[in-house]
Amino acid sequence: MFSKVLVANRGEIALRVIRACQELGVKTVAVYSEADASAPHVREADEAVLVGPAPSSQSYLLGHTLIDVAKRMGAEAIHPGYGFLSERAWFARAVREAGLVFIGPPAEAIEAMGSKTAARQLAIAAGVPVVPGNAEGVRDADEAIAIAEAYGFPVLLKAAAGGGGKGMRIVRHRDDLADALASARRESLNAFGDDAVYVEKYIEGPRHVEIQVLADSHGNVVHLGERECSVQRRHQKMIEEAPSVAVSPELRARMGATAVAAARAAGYVNAGTCEFLLDRDGQYYFLEMNTRIQVEHPVTELVMGLDLVQWQIRIAAGEVLPFAQREFTPRGWAMECRITSEDPANGFLPSTGRIDYLHLPSGPGVRWDGGIEAGSEVGLHYDPMLAKLIVHAPTRPLAIARMRRALHELTIDGVETSRGFHLRVMDDPEFQSGDISIQWLEQRLASLTAPSTDRDTLRLAAIAAALVAHEERTAGRVSSGTAVAGADATAVTAPLAGWAAVARREGLRS
Amino acid sequence: MFSKVLVANRGEIALRVIRACQELGVKTVAVYSEADASAPHVREADEAVLVGPAPSSQSYLLGHTLIDVAKRMGAEAIHPGYGFLSERAWFARAVREAGLVFIGPPAEAIEAMGSKTAARQLAIAAGVPVVPGNAEGVRDADEAIAIAEAYGFPVLLKAAAGGGGKGMRIVRHRDDLADALASARRESLNAFGDDAVYVEKYIEGPRHVEIQVLADSHGNVVHLGERECSVQRRHQKMIEEAPSVAVSPELRARMGATAVAAARAAGYVNAGTCEFLLDRDGQYYFLEMNTRIQVEHPVTELVMGLDLVQWQIRIAAGEVLPFAQREFTPRGWAMECRITSEDPANGFLPSTGRIDYLHLPSGPGVRWDGGIEAGSEVGLHYDPMLAKLIVHAPTRPLAIARMRRALHELTIDGVETSRGFHLRVMDDPEFQSGDISIQWLEQRLASLTAPSTDRDTLRLAAIAAALVAHEERTAGRVSSGTAVAGADATAVTAPLAGWAAVARREGLRS
Repeated sequence: MFSKVLVANRGEIALRVIRACQELGVKTVAVYSEADASAPHVREADEAVLVGPAPSSQSYLLGHTLIDVAKRMGAEAIHPGYGFLSERAWFARAVREAGLVFIGPPAEAIEAMGSKTAARQLAIAAGVPVVPGNAEGVRDADEAIAIAEAYGFPVLLKAAAGGGGKGMRIVRHRDDLADALASARRESLNAFGDDAVYVEKYIEGPRHVEIQVLADSHGNVVHLGERECSVQRRHQKMIEEAPSVAVSPELRARMGATAVAAARAAGYVNAGTCEFLLDRDGQYYFLEMNTRIQVEHPVTELVMGLDLVQWQIRIAAGEVLPFAQREFTPRGWAMECRITSEDPANGFLPSTGRIDYLHLPSGPGVRWDGGIEAGSEVGLHYDPMLAKLIVHAPTRPLAIARMRRALHELTIDGVETSRGFHLRVMDDPEFQSGDISIQWLEQRLASLTAPSTDRDTLRLAAIAAALVAHEERTAGRVSSGTAVAGADATAVTAPLAGWAAVARREGLRS
Repeated sequence: MFSKVLVANRGEIALRVIRACQELGVKTVAVYSEADASAPHVREADEAVLVGPAPSSQSYLLGHTLIDVAKRMGAEAIHPGYGFLSERAWFARAVREAGLVFIGPPAEAIEAMGSKTAARQLAIAAGVPVVPGNAEGVRDADEAIAIAEAYGFPVLLKAAAGGGGKGMRIVRHRDDLADALASARRESLNAFGDDAVYVEKYIEGPRHVEIQVLADSHGNVVHLGERECSVQRRHQKMIEEAPSVAVSPELRARMGATAVAAARAAGYVNAGTCEFLLDRDGQYYFLEMNTRIQVEHPVTELVMGLDLVQWQIRIAAGEVLPFAQREFTPRGWAMECRITSEDPANGFLPSTGRIDYLHLPSGPGVRWDGGIEAGSEVGLHYDPMLAKLIVHAPTRPLAIARMRRALHELTIDGVETSRGFHLRVMDDPEFQSGDISIQWLEQRLASLTAPSTDRDTLRLAAIAAALVAHEERTAGRVSSGTAVAGADATAVTAPLAGWAAVARREGLRS
């Protein structure tokens, strides 16, 4: 095992890696930018080195600087976390060439999976199913119809030169194809100066389901089942689960075997994730492989009963995976909500400020992987994810109930967060039914972020506003004009110590 | 399911029950004494009722008052937690007679298991092994020898009238029995005015191992494996684990079947625990049955993947246990440390005060079941247990490493706590080996609570003292005479913001 590891990241994942090292008896070196001088990951590490100003291009992304720091501090390995340098093949190679160990896959595997096109070719060669479609323009409607019938309707027409939905048509019937192709060609020509259009199979209401794999450097590869990550906004995952309501044990075994085959084809070592689209008929299609630890790894840890980050480190140190595939059966249900400093009522605009007060949820089945504490400054330099709230319970309904309870317990004052949004999702009947796809959240977003209009909430909001006014007056900070319809601030004379807690419980303060 | 439950307790177990109710969609009524007006359990409940002054005899023990409150508030059931009224048969009966549901076993089962003597008779009748010994005085040495040979040496001679070790002799060889009996008789006569002495089998270096059972009101009983609770001080458990290093799957099945038989014999319903002594040869002996939820229930929850308090409530509401015994196999290793407001360096004297600062451990595998928060006043009216720190990891060594990491993260300022003591236990090679008995902690206590003498710790202590002095001076609170051997307080001029965190990490502040 290593004696010392440099953690080339910040926030919750840096703290996560540091904790894994502490439990393995490995010393840690944190790196930090000027903005993070008092961050928890700096304090919790055994040593910490300032590497530059706040912008990550001048600090966390300075790969050669980080390698120099690792060598100077006597670290034998570098853990990149996720984001930043974690999927840069050149960095993995530079670490190796500096005589250090990169805690992640070989640079060659990162490269092999690094472009979607290359990964798709590799997948096809390994017999891994991909979304049918060859990205080459069709000659005419007859060829398009032949291809579409081979794939099965519906199909998607896509501009070969384009993106962003321009020149794109969903075609559900053979008879509509010729017209759709002609109009897609016109639109494509206008938008991109090129009328080449190709045919791709259209996946209806697909889920994003991904398979976690672990591979050691001795040729052993296992998969750890699936994560359901369909709740996305603008391709950003917001809520993840393990297992998925859409995955049977038989499908899990098949998707798992596919992921293992993809990992083997890429010469993969360490923890990695194969992302798939899963359609309503149980057909799945490889999208890409993420060659790093993922944000949502804890849900797999909870249902499978192992520590993925510790295994990343142990694999990098040369250990042999001692597992047999049959040992891995999910137990219970795990769910993760990403707690971000974004304002759901305001188009998820990033919110900045100082965290004045932080109360963490706790008790049975609640895990908090955070990178903040009371006093933390939240700025715009980094990702808005403050923490991950993860629950584990025997069943999905109980996991949702537990998440709701934990979200109610959580209090973050000082910045707007996604907490209230997650509470709305937990209360949503469609989410509760599990009948979701990657389009679900976008379709549902307006109602999930609209101000509440029920009578009790409005009354409580009025009372809370009155109490705020009272408190400000008491504190000598009189602000005029805070009276709210239905509440007279001057009438409130009762002791007010508990108002903030009440308002929080009722979802009136996030 | 009930619509509303009254929680007849305080502290961490009240909060634990409230959380279980919240997740089941059940409203809660808290009760509280004047000392607990701002306690977390009061705030987290939907409603709360003040029942009396701080002494529990005037508040939490007023069974009839609590029943009246439950009826007045519209609660349909009462959860007693542990301690207080939880094992009073009269209270269980009075709750039932008031038309409410007692969330626990029937009054008759509490009575049947309520006295050790009655429970022993019931166990013997049910074929449950007990420590051989009949509590009736022997006539003479010949009879004593005959009994001792039947039990097998060593045996224990015990004064029939006595207790507290008076008139007690361990006899390892037949030849020593006559002399030991004569001297035990003399001592017993002097101490108790009665020379009756009886023979009991002496269990060498036993462990305290207990079996959790769940029984519904439809005749289904399952056991949930064992908890290892040998780390005790003055019969108070301090650290608990599941599973036990001393229990094989085969022994687990046998002890489990025995516990189920005992529960059936007592007409038991709800969650209960059979406590056993387990000797070095794998023989086990029934001690007693605890007819309530136990402090250490979380370790079972973590390795078995269910929520015992929720099941208490569901069983009380008439639900059928849906489990088959074969579903319960422990997964991973769980460990609990009781965080008490006691000063280990001072004979575990209770410590009182205000909790000025509280930083909870978090991250993978860490569970905090607490009843305190920053601002809580810790007095002498109630049990000194502030919270339970529980970890879950794949193996026992990893659980110990995780507990050490979590204990390091935990900061409680304002009262002395058992935190540092638990860190010492985690570092103890004998504890790590698992080779412990119920005598282990008492034998090891002096060294586990002695001030550290290693050179680095002394240096750090000196530096920390110097820094405290500096901080006091800076704050205008100059205290003279704080210079410590090896450190000159006046020489410290560096920025000091981080000193407290450093001191805490090094175990210099609890």
